Amino acid sequence: MRMVDLIIKKRDGKELSNEEIKFWIDGYVNGDIPDYQSSAMAMAIFFKGMNKREIATLTDYMEHSGEVIDLSAISGIKVDKHSTGGVGDKTSLVLGPMVAACGGKLAKMSGRGLGHTGGTLDKLESIPHLSISKTKMEMVEQVNKIGLAIIGQTSSLVPADKKLYALRDVTGTVESIPLIAASVMSKKLASGTDAILLDVTVGEGAFMKNMDSARELARTMVDIGTHLKRDTVAVLSDMSEPLGRAVGNSLEVKEAIASLHGEGPEDLMELCYTSGSIMLVQAKVCKTLEEAREKLHKVIEDGSAFEKFCLMVEAQGGDVEYIRHPEKFEMSKYSIEIRSDVDGYVSELNALEIGESAMRLGAGRETLDDVIDMSAGIVLSKKVGDKVKKGDLLCIVYTNKEDVDSVLVDIKNAYKFSKEEVKALPVIREVIR
Amino acid sequence: MRMVDLIIKKRDGKELSNEEIKFWIDGYVNGDIPDYQSSAMAMAIFFKGMNKREIATLTDYMEHSGEVIDLSAISGIKVDKHSTGGVGDKTSLVLGPMVAACGGKLAKMSGRGLGHTGGTLDKLESIPHLSISKTKMEMVEQVNKIGLAIIGQTSSLVPADKKLYALRDVTGTVESIPLIAASVMSKKLASGTDAILLDVTVGEGAFMKNMDSARELARTMVDIGTHLKRDTVAVLSDMSEPLGRAVGNSLEVKEAIASLHGEGPEDLMELCYTSGSIMLVQAKVCKTLEEAREKLHKVIEDGSAFEKFCLMVEAQGGDVEYIRHPEKFEMSKYSIEIRSDVDGYVSELNALEIGESAMRLGAGRETLDDVIDMSAGIVLSKKVGDKVKKGDLLCIVYTNKEDVDSVLVDIKNAYKFSKEEVKALPVIREVIR
Repeated sequence: MRMVDLIIKKRDGKELSNEEIKFWIDGYVNGDIPDYQSSAMAMAIFFKGMNKREIATLTDYMEHSGEVIDLSAISGIKVDKHSTGGVGDKTSLVLGPMVAACGGKLAKMSGRGLGHTGGTLDKLESIPHLSISKTKMEMVEQVNKIGLAIIGQTSSLVPADKKLYALRDVTGTVESIPLIAASVMSKKLASGTDAILLDVTVGEGAFMKNMDSARELARTMVDIGTHLKRDTVAVLSDMSEPLGRAVGNSLEVKEAIASLHGEGPEDLMELCYTSGSIMLVQAKVCKTLEEAREKLHKVIEDGSAFEKFCLMVEAQGGDVEYIRHPEKFEMSKYSIEIRSDVDGYVSELNALEIGESAMRLGAGRETLDDVIDMSAGIVLSKKVGDKVKKGDLLCIVYTNKEDVDSVLVDIKNAYKFSKEEVKALPVIREVIR
Repeated sequence: MRMVDLIIKKRDGKELSNEEIKFWIDGYVNGDIPDYQSSAMAMAIFFKGMNKREIATLTDYMEHSGEVIDLSAISGIKVDKHSTGGVGDKTSLVLGPMVAACGGKLAKMSGRGLGHTGGTLDKLESIPHLSISKTKMEMVEQVNKIGLAIIGQTSSLVPADKKLYALRDVTGTVESIPLIAASVMSKKLASGTDAILLDVTVGEGAFMKNMDSARELARTMVDIGTHLKRDTVAVLSDMSEPLGRAVGNSLEVKEAIASLHGEGPEDLMELCYTSGSIMLVQAKVCKTLEEAREKLHKVIEDGSAFEKFCLMVEAQGGDVEYIRHPEKFEMSKYSIEIRSDVDGYVSELNALEIGESAMRLGAGRETLDDVIDMSAGIVLSKKVGDKVKKGDLLCIVYTNKEDVDSVLVDIKNAYKFSKEEVKALPVIREVIR
């Protein structure tokens, strides 16, 4: 078998056999197949796609390119949740404790942020002393004890994805649904979960800019899960504007804490209730979505979700005092108010602009080597649908940088206004099973 | 400027600016842009194409990526000829002396054969002691003296094409018309000629399998030439069956010698007369194609084309005795006759099968490191349109290899027969200016 023949086959729109996909992935991981052939293959896949069987096979070989975690030492059905990324997306920090407080088992491996999207690990690390490095045994022990762990992916997991993703990132082949789906699902499958809840974000601040492509990605990933015998459900959630009000690491942790106290923003909470009830049914903790939703409301009201979060922070070495007294989080040197010049309604709040602006304030990374400023970010007072008067506060910008004038202009420009009343999009756009 | 952004731009079907194309080619040649980005770009170009301006710019930057030869020391208009390759294509060996004998000036840089297609350099080197390595000064001197030189490309010419072609060869991106056109034309332009006659072969044994793609390639190359101010004309010639009767290096030289004596096969001679008359008009040696054709017939009849070939062989150090007495060429150890099993007409003689079979007999290279057996090859007695009776000789196979049974089967299978009379395709399919 020659790699060039497989590239030509895919380029000409033909199906690759399972053996051919294995030849590529094995050869790429062990170094027999060079980057320049894999990038040409990725571009051919970008243009010609893959069918269900090819995508499932690709996912399967990628999953098994490295260590596959065995979570059987955790009793019960393990559920995991993955978001395709967004701006202000602190869902895992709220949803994880909620599901665990209801009796679900969540052993979650998360990633770091890059570009305009944040990462759960970075947010967690804004809690002093909290560690996201755990051995597999420590993770199993923690989940058995408190039902919940959120840690970093071990480096031995899915080496094929690590290598291929880094290559796709510099060769214009990121935006391929088969490759995105295989990348996400191979990691989820390798992390040993029984059931998977996918949060596929859609809109300006998401990877998928429109419903058609989001639906296609969600359907592709659910099909992979089904093909590889894991209960997989996808929620399509709106990311045209940021989720919740806080964007930036410790700012988002504080919003998550408030949410666990029952003071969360409506869109974030609705996403947590919808996703959480699906996960509780997947975990067979609840029989119906209604029963699950009721249970989730209860763990917010009685404070047990908040206590679960405290337990997790404690188990991972974090300083719980910060969770109980969020005013302890260090504030940035500067806070700058942005106010409205007009009367009207917010008709648009561009999530991509806000995400990129937050990154430039210090809250995110442009390259993987950048160091994050945990206190930097933006807190939005007005979101789409809100009525504003001239002089009203739109948002507060937090930063330790001196020269952010151009960022402030961009943040202000992320807001669009209308004279007529505007209704925000519902956060849950669709559920795909 | 980031290469990944240029890849994405092309991938999404947008035009690259001249600066962007320069950034790619310069960066690729000097090593700043890695192979894996160039292969992804090549695949994006395969799918999305390039417009006239982009292709001309790409050609121009490729041409100037290395040495550009100055032939101004040769008086008169220099014409060059390039074929996109075929089986049994010894045209340059016949056409070159014919044009030079008429007063044209030809400083031709040729290539080696690979796969099923032969290369002019390899054919020339079957003449004992002939050298295809000449300095630029030696070449200029030879052309000024005898009007003709056929030598190897110097290694400093078009390094961008060398690097890119080697990459395309292993990444499934060879079959892209903009990239083929830029590759061919950058080399022709860098070799310093004033006018270019392109022989675009079409059919089973050629790169372009059908008239549509051949026409597109020819049109693209003629447009590049026009854009870069060189008089460029393309002849589309048939390569569904081999050209002439001999396939294999010294066998083809012998056929070329016979042709220069006026005993050439009809298709080869027609191609030489058509291409040669265009070249003589391009060189302003003749005013009309009719006048040129008459002149070309004359130099065959009076033996001056043959003498020009002898002069070239002599000037390049070759043993002219072999040209005057071609029976001196060493014969292969084995000659095997293949005869017809049927009565009828030859309806097909697959040039690709014949070319690949000749390669397996020792006449060609599978990889650039393979050593060629100069005496190996096939001489075709019957070609498309010929009437055959059971037992008639179809062809003679020449080889020094012992175990060629499977090759003989393939050669026989390259012939298809019909009960009804069949007409061969005309060798000249179209002329594109």
